[in-house]
Amino acid sequence: MTCCKQTFTFADRDHPLLLDSGQNLWPVTLAYETWGELNSDKTNAILVLHAFSGDSHVASHPEDDFSDNGPGWWEAMVGSGKGIDTDKYFVICSNILGSCCGSTGPGDENPITGKRYGLDFPLVTIADMVRAQRALIDFLGIDVLYGVVGGSVGGMQVLQWCVSYPDMVRSAIPLATTMRHSALCIAFNEVARQSIMIDPKWQQGGYSDEEPPELGLAVARMIGHITYLSDQAMHRKFGRKLQGRDAFSFGFESDFQVESYLNYQGAKFVRRFDANSLLYITKAADYFDLDKEENPEINRLNSSTTKFLVISFTSDWLYPTYQSRELVQALKRNGCDVCFCEIQADCGHDAFLLPDEHLTSMISGFLEGVENSCR
Amino acid sequence: MTCCKQTFTFADRDHPLLLDSGQNLWPVTLAYETWGELNSDKTNAILVLHAFSGDSHVASHPEDDFSDNGPGWWEAMVGSGKGIDTDKYFVICSNILGSCCGSTGPGDENPITGKRYGLDFPLVTIADMVRAQRALIDFLGIDVLYGVVGGSVGGMQVLQWCVSYPDMVRSAIPLATTMRHSALCIAFNEVARQSIMIDPKWQQGGYSDEEPPELGLAVARMIGHITYLSDQAMHRKFGRKLQGRDAFSFGFESDFQVESYLNYQGAKFVRRFDANSLLYITKAADYFDLDKEENPEINRLNSSTTKFLVISFTSDWLYPTYQSRELVQALKRNGCDVCFCEIQADCGHDAFLLPDEHLTSMISGFLEGVENSCR
Repeated sequence: MTCCKQTFTFADRDHPLLLDSGQNLWPVTLAYETWGELNSDKTNAILVLHAFSGDSHVASHPEDDFSDNGPGWWEAMVGSGKGIDTDKYFVICSNILGSCCGSTGPGDENPITGKRYGLDFPLVTIADMVRAQRALIDFLGIDVLYGVVGGSVGGMQVLQWCVSYPDMVRSAIPLATTMRHSALCIAFNEVARQSIMIDPKWQQGGYSDEEPPELGLAVARMIGHITYLSDQAMHRKFGRKLQGRDAFSFGFESDFQVESYLNYQGAKFVRRFDANSLLYITKAADYFDLDKEENPEINRLNSSTTKFLVISFTSDWLYPTYQSRELVQALKRNGCDVCFCEIQADCGHDAFLLPDEHLTSMISGFLEGVENSCR
Repeated sequence: MTCCKQTFTFADRDHPLLLDSGQNLWPVTLAYETWGELNSDKTNAILVLHAFSGDSHVASHPEDDFSDNGPGWWEAMVGSGKGIDTDKYFVICSNILGSCCGSTGPGDENPITGKRYGLDFPLVTIADMVRAQRALIDFLGIDVLYGVVGGSVGGMQVLQWCVSYPDMVRSAIPLATTMRHSALCIAFNEVARQSIMIDPKWQQGGYSDEEPPELGLAVARMIGHITYLSDQAMHRKFGRKLQGRDAFSFGFESDFQVESYLNYQGAKFVRRFDANSLLYITKAADYFDLDKEENPEINRLNSSTTKFLVISFTSDWLYPTYQSRELVQALKRNGCDVCFCEIQADCGHDAFLLPDEHLTSMISGFLEGVENSCR
């Protein structure tokens, strides 16, 4: 059972998905893909969760010819014989609620008005995204997930899975993530949102397919892109090299390679991503907080049997290692079985997506160890 | 001689200021203020240079009633009995070329067309800014400056002064600065510029006083503001505290204090600063490079007698300490007399502007030492 993109739809007017905001959502569609075979006792499923602008295409499929379906966003990690070995595990990757890559989001039709949701789409939380994923896992007939794995906003979903459905998660690998967004992360997200919302084409979220707020979305992506890299990586990759010229322009075109790169990344992003989805998903990430003073949800993991592998990267300044340490401390405080590793990498937050032998062997080794442990 | 804002104008069609770009500029006006008295042999003048959005008002004047002229941007450091003691020194602070606070910039009238320059204003460099300041210092009848002091983009001007006019600078204090902008700094500046240039009111720089690109400029300022703070400072100041509400809005208003703060800072900035000036000054900072491989201008300091005090701050991630160390190494390589201090501060880049006893006593002590050294 190896499948290209499929969709799963649930919830109707009488049985809507109840969201954290108190609002109802129906119908709810999730786009997902699977790799490998679910074993007969359905105990080898690994759910991979994507970061904010990702999709269900974590890796290519054996039958992909790459002509219309490029490599996946974690091609180095997921596949036959790789860190998450699709010869052994049944891998599922689901697109998140609120996104624009096949799952229900603000770009979809509001069944009540018959028009595109826009800002009428209810605000969803990380817990809401995980609620919808739970329905998909139920639909696939899986009672317990062998593993839940994801980085960045995907890592938040990993942690939310453990907190919301502790008995369904045998092992969890949150990478380059946090229990809650810092003020710095909220600040960057807010500036990205503002850059979209000041674009007159945004039209209070009511733009058409033909006239999206491309310029604002491109600037938002440029901001994001800076935060995914690091000072060192940008120095190594670009330094002060000029782009296609020997001398300064003494004008406002791109002089430096780093400027061209960011402008290119911004322009590329608007061809594949929806501006309103960016607003919704960044807000979900900002709201995420498993360690609220008044109600630390992380404490629901008290005496949980889930095995954790927490991974951070030295040059990640979006979710720095100290935030992973806080997570590890919270898990330890609750008696959880936790391994923690900080990986030396100068590529910044994006390091978790890049090929790295150390990371690969750590993940495959940890997953093997789960198999051998009793439950 | 204690003076509120004055102006100095020089250069005309026949004797223009020749810029690094090869273009001519005339007339050139600099707004400046002075504090204290120039001694009879004119040896006690200290030139203070401001950061990118600063102005000539580094401190209040004894006669200021604060009703229309608030405290200065470095009130804690400059004044009677302070780190830069106006009882001892004749302090001059000049607004920079390209700015919008009284000096010639893109918001002024182009004498050739009779219209506002806009993007017809020539691109100026840090060296051009310093050229204009040199004319002011000549006009004031000062042959040698006792000290040149400034942080951030002001620190770049300090270094440029030393390189361009080594015999005119007895001592130099570059704070929280760099010999050249890193790719990371260029990246942030480019995103700030793009956020202005996508605002339809920008009109290719040709906007009117009545309809400036306020929204784009506000977003640019928000981006800048994040880079002036630090993760720790934002955590301490805002954390995840909500603004004027007990619970999430589940909408796109500001939920968190840090969002309100940034939006407030953005809105405040547009009332005092010009969008085109931001474009010009950020570009000047990006172009700045005293250590170019093909021509390291810093080597002009070989056997210079200027005494240097280089200061960095631990949590400054815009111009991190390693960049000050590179500067110190370049100065040492050239046999310069250099003191270096990294100050423990968790406030980020803005730390140089904040009251700090350690910083104050270091600067006053260093300046006293210069007096006692022979030349």
